[in-house]
Amino acid sequence: MPTAPWSSGAAYVDGRYMPIAEAAIPITDWGYRRSDVTYDVVSVWGGAFFRLDDHMRRFRASMRALRLEPAESEEQIRQVLHECVRRAGLREAYVAMDCLRGAPKPGVARHPINCRNYIVAFATPFVWVMSPEMQERGAHLIIAKTPRIADDSVDPKVKNFHWGDLTRGLFEAHDRGADNCVLLDRDGFVTEGPGFNVFAVTDGAVATSDRGALEGITRLSVGELCGDLGMPFAVRPLSAAELRDADEIFLATTAGGIMPASRIDGRILGNDRPGPVSARLRERFWAKRAEGWHATPIDYAASAELQ
Amino acid sequence: MPTAPWSSGAAYVDGRYMPIAEAAIPITDWGYRRSDVTYDVVSVWGGAFFRLDDHMRRFRASMRALRLEPAESEEQIRQVLHECVRRAGLREAYVAMDCLRGAPKPGVARHPINCRNYIVAFATPFVWVMSPEMQERGAHLIIAKTPRIADDSVDPKVKNFHWGDLTRGLFEAHDRGADNCVLLDRDGFVTEGPGFNVFAVTDGAVATSDRGALEGITRLSVGELCGDLGMPFAVRPLSAAELRDADEIFLATTAGGIMPASRIDGRILGNDRPGPVSARLRERFWAKRAEGWHATPIDYAASAELQ
Repeated sequence: MPTAPWSSGAAYVDGRYMPIAEAAIPITDWGYRRSDVTYDVVSVWGGAFFRLDDHMRRFRASMRALRLEPAESEEQIRQVLHECVRRAGLREAYVAMDCLRGAPKPGVARHPINCRNYIVAFATPFVWVMSPEMQERGAHLIIAKTPRIADDSVDPKVKNFHWGDLTRGLFEAHDRGADNCVLLDRDGFVTEGPGFNVFAVTDGAVATSDRGALEGITRLSVGELCGDLGMPFAVRPLSAAELRDADEIFLATTAGGIMPASRIDGRILGNDRPGPVSARLRERFWAKRAEGWHATPIDYAASAELQ
Repeated sequence: MPTAPWSSGAAYVDGRYMPIAEAAIPITDWGYRRSDVTYDVVSVWGGAFFRLDDHMRRFRASMRALRLEPAESEEQIRQVLHECVRRAGLREAYVAMDCLRGAPKPGVARHPINCRNYIVAFATPFVWVMSPEMQERGAHLIIAKTPRIADDSVDPKVKNFHWGDLTRGLFEAHDRGADNCVLLDRDGFVTEGPGFNVFAVTDGAVATSDRGALEGITRLSVGELCGDLGMPFAVRPLSAAELRDADEIFLATTAGGIMPASRIDGRILGNDRPGPVSARLRERFWAKRAEGWHATPIDYAASAELQ
């Protein structure tokens, strides 16, 4: 078993592995100073990646959208993710991959086209956006006054760190005694919350927003689970009013799975506990993962250094 | 005189000084992973800060808006800036100060309220957003199709790294053979470009946008210079059409001063050179700075370590 400092997490920064505590990026890098970066997060549960192919596909599409071209091939990035988890020795992990713009080379115009892009990745113990205890009682949500950054300014389908609006929403939630927030677009439709998709359950049918939101991989899983269980599932416009009046609300994210809510804007949903549809989907989600659903096992004995 | 590695720049990261090449932030910090950070940039020219009080006032207001509270007092932050410039031994410098959210303490809810905020600062050789050569011929601009992130999602008066829209605009400019871009808001009014305010000169009167833009300190200087020279100056709505039809266009930023443009969307302004009003303001700007206008001299002999 790995010991400290590796057990807190392992990272890869632009070609080199290191314990997570040493992993840092230059303060002059545009990945930080212009938030000119895309990323993805895949989970490891029971010693296996979940839907790794889906995450790699989305990460590739995000890099292409931002015209980011790292030195590593997709196969090398996969090896890096495996190696980070192996070095940290984690059976349950939060595994992130970032592609940063870098900084302009000396002597050329200060333009993003003149930067060397690079990969950063890390594996740490699994992160819960909402603690298991909060999931048992159901999250208390608010609909924030701050609108989500519009799609034509920053594309939410390209996973990004432009969280100023979401952070404002989190402070609104805090000030109103709630746990978390949902943001609307300018037309009053539901988009997403800080790191999760939002679902309404009405008369047994599940719906999630078709706009202003990441195309979540856990959202994809929710759709498949609904199919298995014979529940209607739709990705479509979802108004704030429909969300407020729903029988149940739940959230979905890689860092937490399917997370039920029990209140929105102070209104108590059902009996102030996770509703039956949300609870059933959540239970089924974790049961299927335990059975190896969409799993890519990690070979903890192997050693596949890059280079 | 400082030698390498200090001569490339000096940094301060959360209580400690170091050469710029060593200055880095953790990859798990929300200042990076959520772009939950504000910053300011002040210039040093001829061994003196320019309008340091104005930059400190704005930085303080930005931190307050984001509810960021670093350990350092304002006086200590000033000392840090002086010390970075002293250590780098620079007479002309680009001096940045950031306040980052940090990361949540272990065992508490993952909320920005549960983070220890901290200061990062650095001084490097002066940065030109546009090279002096480009300023001589005048910048070639485009009006980007990408709209600026709206004020109610992310406040542009709180200086921030949410540059996804500006970066997209820079790629639009590159693809159209131009140097740089100006972004509009959703109503077709001029906001700002990547790191600068935008000015139109029509019939000898200078106007700059009153919306979707940082309240630039160099913009403040432009207003004062116009007053000195008896030129009308207004901060008011500026439509795309008015900008395209202007007699002259110029840009203003700490990292470059007053920068004339000579083309917009392929249209040649005047004789394809900086116009007379822009050139006069630029000349006057640098002449007054050489005379010590709004200057706070740096005592290069002193040593004022924090702590």
